[in-house]
Amino acid sequence: MGVIHSSPLSLSPFTTAIRITGSSVFPYTSKANPERVINSPFNHTDNICLPNLLKPTKKFGSFSHFSHISTCLGSKTVPFKCFGKVREMETQEGIFQKTLIDFHGIDEELIQKMVYDALVWCSLHGLVVGDKSVQRSGKVPGVGLVHAPFALLPMAFPEIHWNLACEVAPIFNELIDRNKRKWMPLHRGLLDIHSKMLEINKKEEIRLGLHRSDYMLDEKTKLLLQIELNTISSSFAGLSCRVSELHRSLLNSYGEHIGLDPRRIPGNASVDKFAEALAKAWTEYNRPRALVMVVVQPEEHNMYDQHWLCAELKDRYPFNLLYSLSCVELWEILPDGTLLVGGQEISVVYFRAGYAPTDYPSEAEWRARLLMEQSSAVKCPSISYQLAGTKKIQQELAKPNMLERFLDNKEDIAKLRKCFAGLWSLEDSDIIKKAIERPELFVMKPQREGGGNNIYNDDVRTNLGICHKDHAVSELGVYGAYLRNKEKVISKRAVWMLECGTKVSSSNEGGVAAGFAVLDSIYLN
Amino acid sequence: MGVIHSSPLSLSPFTTAIRITGSSVFPYTSKANPERVINSPFNHTDNICLPNLLKPTKKFGSFSHFSHISTCLGSKTVPFKCFGKVREMETQEGIFQKTLIDFHGIDEELIQKMVYDALVWCSLHGLVVGDKSVQRSGKVPGVGLVHAPFALLPMAFPEIHWNLACEVAPIFNELIDRNKRKWMPLHRGLLDIHSKMLEINKKEEIRLGLHRSDYMLDEKTKLLLQIELNTISSSFAGLSCRVSELHRSLLNSYGEHIGLDPRRIPGNASVDKFAEALAKAWTEYNRPRALVMVVVQPEEHNMYDQHWLCAELKDRYPFNLLYSLSCVELWEILPDGTLLVGGQEISVVYFRAGYAPTDYPSEAEWRARLLMEQSSAVKCPSISYQLAGTKKIQQELAKPNMLERFLDNKEDIAKLRKCFAGLWSLEDSDIIKKAIERPELFVMKPQREGGGNNIYNDDVRTNLGICHKDHAVSELGVYGAYLRNKEKVISKRAVWMLECGTKVSSSNEGGVAAGFAVLDSIYLN
Repeated sequence: MGVIHSSPLSLSPFTTAIRITGSSVFPYTSKANPERVINSPFNHTDNICLPNLLKPTKKFGSFSHFSHISTCLGSKTVPFKCFGKVREMETQEGIFQKTLIDFHGIDEELIQKMVYDALVWCSLHGLVVGDKSVQRSGKVPGVGLVHAPFALLPMAFPEIHWNLACEVAPIFNELIDRNKRKWMPLHRGLLDIHSKMLEINKKEEIRLGLHRSDYMLDEKTKLLLQIELNTISSSFAGLSCRVSELHRSLLNSYGEHIGLDPRRIPGNASVDKFAEALAKAWTEYNRPRALVMVVVQPEEHNMYDQHWLCAELKDRYPFNLLYSLSCVELWEILPDGTLLVGGQEISVVYFRAGYAPTDYPSEAEWRARLLMEQSSAVKCPSISYQLAGTKKIQQELAKPNMLERFLDNKEDIAKLRKCFAGLWSLEDSDIIKKAIERPELFVMKPQREGGGNNIYNDDVRTNLGICHKDHAVSELGVYGAYLRNKEKVISKRAVWMLECGTKVSSSNEGGVAAGFAVLDSIYLN
Repeated sequence: MGVIHSSPLSLSPFTTAIRITGSSVFPYTSKANPERVINSPFNHTDNICLPNLLKPTKKFGSFSHFSHISTCLGSKTVPFKCFGKVREMETQEGIFQKTLIDFHGIDEELIQKMVYDALVWCSLHGLVVGDKSVQRSGKVPGVGLVHAPFALLPMAFPEIHWNLACEVAPIFNELIDRNKRKWMPLHRGLLDIHSKMLEINKKEEIRLGLHRSDYMLDEKTKLLLQIELNTISSSFAGLSCRVSELHRSLLNSYGEHIGLDPRRIPGNASVDKFAEALAKAWTEYNRPRALVMVVVQPEEHNMYDQHWLCAELKDRYPFNLLYSLSCVELWEILPDGTLLVGGQEISVVYFRAGYAPTDYPSEAEWRARLLMEQSSAVKCPSISYQLAGTKKIQQELAKPNMLERFLDNKEDIAKLRKCFAGLWSLEDSDIIKKAIERPELFVMKPQREGGGNNIYNDDVRTNLGICHKDHAVSELGVYGAYLRNKEKVISKRAVWMLECGTKVSSSNEGGVAAGFAVLDSIYLN
């Protein structure tokens, strides 16, 4: 059973942009917002290989092999046109200046240089994923690496909306924490565990949430609309920090030529802050010899995103990490609730698995999950937090008077409500009909987490049985962490950074990036 | 025609070590120095895949999938045996303490963790090469990446010898600069250009050399013996800095357990210093708008090593880089000697190509090289420097009374002479006979530059027509830069860092690392 998540007519980030994936550079066309379409110099073929892009130009004479040629242009020496344009845009908060990143007429040679430099940057700075076409690349680090799919330049984003997104993050965190009612049976296994915890009146004294709230911007209603709130395995904190750095590095080199200022890309410290929150949870648990366990999937092409976080933990904090898989049979709980794995005490269980149906192939995984939930280890997230992040529950929260059950502050409630894009169940046949007729109005959210599962635009029709075509929609993700110990909130308003991903569905894309988000950062205006 | 380079009986770095290459972890066996053999826990098969290495152990219970499991052990919490041993070793300079890195009895699980962590580290920190088994990986950055082949731990190296190696580097630089006689016709094309320069009495006012002097250590004679002096395209300055950092990072995590102190790995600033020397040459040329041109090969799997240097240049210095290939037909020289490429003035030509016969597939490349040499641009290296680095000329320099022709300081001469391992020509049939009988005494040096071309041990026989077997020999490379403007020496004693590569011949190895040096760092004792 799916849920259709309404989205407004003119999603601002829904544009053609230059997205660079494993073996190709390809543009996406916007139907929603043709005015803001980036007129890519590339042909609209599926896979434009870099050697073709880096073909000779007259400027540098005739080289016999040009595939390895690129120029790094520093500032000031080579004159380029300035492409930045400023126009006014009205929002519900008033009128503000908006710089559009307008690529009309941008020099093709310059784009080629930027692509080349960006690819080098990714390789040197660990903005990489496992190449799905290479065996073992999801299991063994260091082999089958390919740069992560990324957008060549940041997405323009109004500062006012960004501020709002940062402002509501701690409120959402609070909402997740308070959200303890017994929900409809949707995730049967999770709910069973949840019910058992309710039965034994299990108290989670230390509660840690590492969340990412995803938004789209509606140009018509001028609203920042929440698409989903991830409460388990919020990904790309590691790689998105790298993307912000990549874009800043490109703008340092080329910003003057294209009229963009690197300082307008907000700092992204999400990976530091997630590490800090995990470390604080370990401190609160207050057993110095206990380990932090990272529960991972047996095959994970996005492993370097996780390793960035783990590297931060290893470098800065004194505790030890234990990578593990969710299927664990020899774990045990001591009478006092201590969780032991192989005889070693676990203080914090950080899940980068456990959200997909395939993460529970047998009863053993469910037993392991139950065991963890019964223990006194800090779960990030607990079953309760995880359930609160499911689409069905978010849909419930969007109903009238629901937020009031969990939150007191009326202003907070109003802010959150403004962000709800509205959720309808697929059980409603009128909605299905409308989705088929006007697919651009909807984003179909499958009832699971993890990247690459969203189905946009014409693919809504596909999935409802009509046709095939892929498009991409950019989302802004804002990370936030929440940590409390009994009644003491340790990190509540701790809201940090953003990740900006363009999720593409995996059917038609080809290449190694299929199923990955195309990473982006934002440019404030 | 080859040259046999004699090497002493017991080359100290000629040992079994754990070398990690693209798709395998494999040990090398030492015949020369069995006492120092590292008793690797791995079977002596050619390719031991990591998933096998990361198999379950009792300690962590029974996991259903263990391939992605590793533990990061911080200091203090998990007790491990200390494996460091200290013994006295006599040298020509006296007696000093020598810590042997002895892997006898080292915990297999610990090695597995270190391998896993090291592979992650490489991926996040750009210690990568292009995987030769992936198309385009030598042409397009960001695709087909694989960690560079590296040794898991640094090679123990006596501080006294390291100091000597650093001390003689500027003397060798000076020698290269003064070495201007007309040599035997060996590199016909280079010599033709050299002759033409002598005819027109061409003065190179600004002379820049970025050199790497490679050594082996002879335990029998206690001598540091120079194997070769690279004067063109000295590679691995970029990646070897990363390897030093990798080893320091591993020793930060595991050093206490294996009795090694990360502070004993000397800092490696070679890439900074090479960048600084290039920048200084550009400053001396004194034309702010002129570019630095990096001449590269059309296909280069070691491109990230070059990109590290270029990244350093781009980040820290105001001039622009132009990547190019040596085959250039539309270059021009103005009457005042100014070199123009596509209308842009070139101040410094930095060669990462031009050393291999295949770099000159036609007359066009020779014309380009001649044009550059005729120009007033700073060549790194000039034809003269490049010739001085050829084996034949180094062999000549090793002859009695040759050094005295170029150097004045008797102490300097004595130091250099001590480092000459001795060179014999293959024209000498007695030498060939001896090489076949006692291959362990010789290292055959083909008459060309570039990694992966050395043939060691049993392969000497192979190449002379007898049998096949591969072994590896570790070398210590010390980087040095030399810059002078007319009579003013700007960087003379500028001696920095070390690179420690185990060159393996490419025939039997298999995997993507074939032909690459296996990178290492040193551990001072």
